[in-house]
Amino acid sequence: MTSRTTAANGARTPSGCTASGPAVRLGIDIGGTKTAVAAFDAGNTILARATAATPAARGAAAVVAQVLELAARALAAQAAVGTRLTAIGVGTAGVVAPDGRTIAAATDALPGWAGTPLAALLEDALGAPASLLGDVQAFLAGELAAGAARGARGAIAVMAGTGIGGAIALEGTVVRGGHGAAGHLGHVPVAEAEGHRCPCGAWGHVEAVASGPAMTALLRRDPAHTAAADLRTVGALAAGGNTAARAVLRRGGRALGAALAGVVSTFDPDVVVLAGGVLDAGPWYEESVRSELAARTLPLLSETRVVRAALGADAVLLGAVCHVGVTHPAAD
Amino acid sequence: MTSRTTAANGARTPSGCTASGPAVRLGIDIGGTKTAVAAFDAGNTILARATAATPAARGAAAVVAQVLELAARALAAQAAVGTRLTAIGVGTAGVVAPDGRTIAAATDALPGWAGTPLAALLEDALGAPASLLGDVQAFLAGELAAGAARGARGAIAVMAGTGIGGAIALEGTVVRGGHGAAGHLGHVPVAEAEGHRCPCGAWGHVEAVASGPAMTALLRRDPAHTAAADLRTVGALAAGGNTAARAVLRRGGRALGAALAGVVSTFDPDVVVLAGGVLDAGPWYEESVRSELAARTLPLLSETRVVRAALGADAVLLGAVCHVGVTHPAAD
Repeated sequence: MTSRTTAANGARTPSGCTASGPAVRLGIDIGGTKTAVAAFDAGNTILARATAATPAARGAAAVVAQVLELAARALAAQAAVGTRLTAIGVGTAGVVAPDGRTIAAATDALPGWAGTPLAALLEDALGAPASLLGDVQAFLAGELAAGAARGARGAIAVMAGTGIGGAIALEGTVVRGGHGAAGHLGHVPVAEAEGHRCPCGAWGHVEAVASGPAMTALLRRDPAHTAAADLRTVGALAAGGNTAARAVLRRGGRALGAALAGVVSTFDPDVVVLAGGVLDAGPWYEESVRSELAARTLPLLSETRVVRAALGADAVLLGAVCHVGVTHPAAD
Repeated sequence: MTSRTTAANGARTPSGCTASGPAVRLGIDIGGTKTAVAAFDAGNTILARATAATPAARGAAAVVAQVLELAARALAAQAAVGTRLTAIGVGTAGVVAPDGRTIAAATDALPGWAGTPLAALLEDALGAPASLLGDVQAFLAGELAAGAARGARGAIAVMAGTGIGGAIALEGTVVRGGHGAAGHLGHVPVAEAEGHRCPCGAWGHVEAVASGPAMTALLRRDPAHTAAADLRTVGALAAGGNTAARAVLRRGGRALGAALAGVVSTFDPDVVVLAGGVLDAGPWYEESVRSELAARTLPLLSETRVVRAALGADAVLLGAVCHVGVTHPAAD
């Protein structure tokens, strides 16, 4: 698959990831709560899509069966066109093994998901080459191909939601890492999180104070807000002028900004892409991310570009498709 | 220059960076206190070397003149062999611009160094292609070519001395970064350094408590040790059982371990390479680095390999030479 071109200056830049000739490619986004499948044409237009709740509690076999059912629906919708399925790209919750074939690790959000040979299962069932990425890795691949990071060589993505996910890219291509875990910047230790336990089991990680559930739990420690239901409650209180709610959001933002400051000093990317539902809880979080990042990174890098993601949830589907057949440039 | 080969599995691995045919390459290591130049043969044996104090206070022109004088000496020593100078590789203090041609930024250790078009000056004077890297970036390139990181794809290097320097590599090749600053992990914010000012001007960076001078200054805060001269004093006290000295070393090690924990979670390298004079101040520092890194990174990555550097100061010379002509794989 030709997904890169050579620019006049000799450096490769993402081409936007279009396929040549008539072809349909499937993008699959498997999350703990929702699974989405989309059929893309050669120009990356979505021809058909199918979505359903992920049957996570019923185990890996049920999740795979659901994916295949959704794939059949997405493909049926365009079968009349008579084109051939040429690639299957998956962005999934959990850690994908470095070869892009199996799930190396997963949280309780997808019980039994670890060890699933998902690429082989999909290839057997659908008859086209498949490749897996972590969902945030796929998200960044999508933003690189056609979104907020288009044209960037070094890039970092952050997904701030029920956890703090991330991904890194070099030379325009997402980095998988030695264990497939590259990008887990939610597990950067920061001062703001000292004494707080992270869902991963370790202490003091940014995710322990900067995710939606973490900030909701922090607000509940306030006697006036013990019943705060979720981050929407926190955001609504903050919008109404509540100082405790704003303080929790600012603290989470500072924590993430400090983590990003270290990542930027270490990696020196062209762009940092911010995404995730937490950004919708008012301006306090994002403002703190940006100001803390600028203040605490290496001064030479304090003006590193920070942008909001541009593609929404479709970035995972597109990025997963674009990454099929792409090994890292060095291994081409 | 052929510095990479293709392994049987299709992934490129460092070849050890040997040149083909008769050729002499110059490696140059420019630090704030010392400048070294070595002439390498095609098999990476050092044929001749010349070293002198860096005339830093006399400005950039004096530093360049010194480099050229040392180069002439190193080349004269092998001129009888009749081979041709084919490449000049430089590892230098300061930040090298991403194109490897000029110094983008430097500290007071080399006044006036920023802006020096060093590659062009060397090419004009010596008649062979030149390329610059940061000194720690060159150090990691050397360890990748023939040292402790040989064969690794993703690698992180730490140089703990008068500062905390670092470098990162992907697919076996050192990453320069968007501003040439990739690897500055001394500027990762950590809890242990909160309230301490970093030499870069920002607050709370690991370098502010984990470098040699920083730990010496911390020990001097103890009324019993206000005259501690340098890190050797700290190490000698620690070796004699002094608890304050050991505590300062352990704190510095914990700070660096926490910073590395975040870098490992974000980057998922195959190996972390430790180097620098601070490691010689007894086992307390390195033990704390290792235990804090293992305890605070993503649990999936807690067994990431941590090794001591293998080549000593020659790693900078060798790495600088090996990186000439090597753009990052994606831009080949």
